[in-house]
Amino acid sequence: MKLTILGCHSATPRANHNPTSQVLEVKGHMFLIDCGEGTQIQLRRCKVKFSRIKHIFISHLHGDHFFGLIGLISTFRLLGREAELHIYGPKGIKEVITLQLKLGNSWTNYPLLFHELEGNLPEQIFEDDQLTVHTIPLDHRVYTNGFLFKEKKGERKLDVTAAVNAKIDQSYFPKLKQGFNVKNREGKEIANKSVTHDPDPVKSYAFCSDTAYDPSIVPQIKGSTILYHESTFLKTHVHLCEKTKHSTAEQAGQIAKEAQVGTLLLGHYSGRYSDFELFRKEAQEHFKKVELAADGKVFVID
Amino acid sequence: MKLTILGCHSATPRANHNPTSQVLEVKGHMFLIDCGEGTQIQLRRCKVKFSRIKHIFISHLHGDHFFGLIGLISTFRLLGREAELHIYGPKGIKEVITLQLKLGNSWTNYPLLFHELEGNLPEQIFEDDQLTVHTIPLDHRVYTNGFLFKEKKGERKLDVTAAVNAKIDQSYFPKLKQGFNVKNREGKEIANKSVTHDPDPVKSYAFCSDTAYDPSIVPQIKGSTILYHESTFLKTHVHLCEKTKHSTAEQAGQIAKEAQVGTLLLGHYSGRYSDFELFRKEAQEHFKKVELAADGKVFVID
Repeated sequence: MKLTILGCHSATPRANHNPTSQVLEVKGHMFLIDCGEGTQIQLRRCKVKFSRIKHIFISHLHGDHFFGLIGLISTFRLLGREAELHIYGPKGIKEVITLQLKLGNSWTNYPLLFHELEGNLPEQIFEDDQLTVHTIPLDHRVYTNGFLFKEKKGERKLDVTAAVNAKIDQSYFPKLKQGFNVKNREGKEIANKSVTHDPDPVKSYAFCSDTAYDPSIVPQIKGSTILYHESTFLKTHVHLCEKTKHSTAEQAGQIAKEAQVGTLLLGHYSGRYSDFELFRKEAQEHFKKVELAADGKVFVID
Repeated sequence: MKLTILGCHSATPRANHNPTSQVLEVKGHMFLIDCGEGTQIQLRRCKVKFSRIKHIFISHLHGDHFFGLIGLISTFRLLGREAELHIYGPKGIKEVITLQLKLGNSWTNYPLLFHELEGNLPEQIFEDDQLTVHTIPLDHRVYTNGFLFKEKKGERKLDVTAAVNAKIDQSYFPKLKQGFNVKNREGKEIANKSVTHDPDPVKSYAFCSDTAYDPSIVPQIKGSTILYHESTFLKTHVHLCEKTKHSTAEQAGQIAKEAQVGTLLLGHYSGRYSDFELFRKEAQEHFKKVELAADGKVFVID
């Protein structure tokens, strides 16, 4: 799992402050999460091979999370893309993108598939052999979802030497990887755990932006390897959270603690701050393992 | 008259290649012409006081000319703008902007006034005491207008000493500036030209992008102080012009020559080229005074 932060600042883009966008590489996928204005340029700056992006997840339809989407879709067209592109986002996203393509007489020459979201309960929106993606309904001024990317539990790891020594026929190896006991060539039942090891721990990434402090998400994101939780404000400005439906770094720390995540990643900083270490310190009052998102920063999750 | 090139490249934006956008400062106005993705960042980089922008002119609804508009409109809102903003552009621009504001539940708290264009003949779309703006219908793949910004002829310049020596009463000075002969205190008619000088020459800026080679625009842009004419290609790629409805540098030079403009400014270069001096050389085969647009470059027109 590799997470590249393309942008992590709120509201108005500036020369060195890009709005929200991230690339999550996991199990052969390159998922784009949110797409603020200038995302395609950030993809180039960060040297992401963006033709590999096949799925784009949009949390909500505020400009700092989706104004770059139409530009990226158009650039894919100009670059001669042929592969399907899937867009997951709030209802309305199809209308606004297709209207812009229509006005420019610029239909894509690749399949552009919209998966519009309207539900208010977590739902699975993507699945393959190795992972799932679920929505995380959030509490913001407009309809908003976070996204939970979760690897599936892998097969048990076979200790081939032990299995051979136990006289198990090779044709039973798949059964062993699936966790079953099997009989060896002498008809004796062999306990699975005596010839296999536990699979790698399952990794997951929970993206939660934008949102007010909302403990109702805790059960769903419990134990996530990484939690990205917005922290637009420091607690000195907590009074702004109610109206704007954003969170403080302290509240993000509280959520991380309650959800017992591995690491808390903070971002979506308001433009009024310049010293982001203050966000880390504030969150650490509740939860120790805190990282700060920064434009262009890469997190490798082993 | 001062022209700031925010971006002058065609199609897909890159880190150092911004799509079309320009700021024209003239007679107290700050006009924004086209607004590709990232324009608001370029405005900051070029240190343009963009709260002064009250009129935005959009040539056509291809992404590299308008995908930055919704972001700029949103940023104005976040910065607490109260002044009117006028948008001039092809029919459809109102729908696409208002749809995005609606989806984000982000109506502007300043008046946003659309002036949608549908005509196929030049028309005056703005006028005040000192200048006019007319559309220049162009020949492109979608409905497109260039824009002609033209100062009005100023008053004649009074030679106060000469007027006093000619014994003309001060109350007649406005008449003199308007070009009339007047009588002096002794009842003698004084020839206007003996006490006034010609006004400053009228300056004008013709913006023509995107367009195929189209000599029908020549009468309208005749004698413009500056002509910005797109030159997407060099003549080695002239075969691409027919399908894409773009021009070569040579064709831009031909238009400049026929229209007897002061200076030809080239831009909208295709991404396939890196040496833009080739565009200058090619245009100069027909017209000598050629300048090259470059992102961030400022032209002061005296």
